[in-house]
Amino acid sequence: MTYLHHEEHFRSSEVVRDVVIGMADGLTVPFALAAGLTGAIDASRVVVIAGLAEIAAGSIAMGLGGYLAARGESEHYESERAREELEIVEKPAAERAEVREILEGYGLTREQSDPILAAFEARPKVWVDWMMRFELGLEEPDPKRAVRSALTIAGSYVAGGMIPLAPYMITSHSIMALRYSVAATVIALAIFGYVKGRYTGAPPLRASVQTTIIGGLAAAAAFTIAKLIA
Amino acid sequence: MTYLHHEEHFRSSEVVRDVVIGMADGLTVPFALAAGLTGAIDASRVVVIAGLAEIAAGSIAMGLGGYLAARGESEHYESERAREELEIVEKPAAERAEVREILEGYGLTREQSDPILAAFEARPKVWVDWMMRFELGLEEPDPKRAVRSALTIAGSYVAGGMIPLAPYMITSHSIMALRYSVAATVIALAIFGYVKGRYTGAPPLRASVQTTIIGGLAAAAAFTIAKLIA
Repeated sequence: MTYLHHEEHFRSSEVVRDVVIGMADGLTVPFALAAGLTGAIDASRVVVIAGLAEIAAGSIAMGLGGYLAARGESEHYESERAREELEIVEKPAAERAEVREILEGYGLTREQSDPILAAFEARPKVWVDWMMRFELGLEEPDPKRAVRSALTIAGSYVAGGMIPLAPYMITSHSIMALRYSVAATVIALAIFGYVKGRYTGAPPLRASVQTTIIGGLAAAAAFTIAKLIA
Repeated sequence: MTYLHHEEHFRSSEVVRDVVIGMADGLTVPFALAAGLTGAIDASRVVVIAGLAEIAAGSIAMGLGGYLAARGESEHYESERAREELEIVEKPAAERAEVREILEGYGLTREQSDPILAAFEARPKVWVDWMMRFELGLEEPDPKRAVRSALTIAGSYVAGGMIPLAPYMITSHSIMALRYSVAATVIALAIFGYVKGRYTGAPPLRASVQTTIIGGLAAAAAFTIAKLIA
């Protein structure tokens, strides 16, 4: 794997991560809420109202949350970068000592670090790049990421949430709807977990089982709590 | 900021991140759902049942999701590390070329990279450490992180969610409860946003306003959708 491949991998894995963030909760929470309400209140209409309200609330909260997180990452990167740019001009001795400290951590002697420092001082931009990545552990974020991240997360939440809710919208018989909802959602969770595993590098079958169990546990907890207080 | 300070900052910021993940949604989604249902169905009991079912579902889904994400990070790190350990033994020439490629990106000549390569070959563990961080951009995750992350996210979700829901549990007058819920949640969102900003380095007042607006938008969307279909 070359350096460039890693960068590309990093970008496309951000989209996958956003879909996973949105769809994991979108499939699970509206499903569990609808199941819980059916256990407590035998009325498809209330379940549909609550489910759609939850999908609206959840997709907006998670989408805007993702937008702000990505914006915050960009701003954090910019402000840290500006600070490093200032520091290599105003406190070059301290910055040189930091480079040596990092390189020493990898077993380089002072003599071995000197040519690296000389190369950095000839190219300040490269020096700042290096400090950002190796001192602070920060990668430059894609500026378009925030909006794309928000839409991907919100869209995935809505897409995921409509699967468990659709049966309650089709039939007014809420126990029947619950059965179809469970069947549709278990299949969707299993497929989603499998695909998620394929993309994130986890063993797909195990990811599929884990995702389905999370949805089931959440629904069982919601069902039990709703039943207890109803 | 020294290298070690960065590591410590990294660990404590993970806990803050987990609280933020859990509480941001915990404050927002149950609040929006309860507000939406009050707009559609004038019955505190249904709002409380739906709200508690949502908190159970949301906290379990997000907590287990956080657990699996942290576990996945650990496993990804371990498997990549095992691969790098094998590669520096089986394909040392290719690995040396990768080190040179990375160092060239920072303006080092072949002569300047040679002592670094010699230092690495004398200490294979350091070489692998370096490849993990600088080729793959991976930091070693804390093994205890997964369980702590799950409990922190789930607990924060429950703590956040009980704030908007408490008024509906105290009074059966749902419009009155909605007013107290809005007041309590707006105050809680403003404080949460401010504290979040302080910890994550964003301007606290702006973070406070943004967080409150997200909660308000999510609630308004849930309210409108529930009202339209009721």
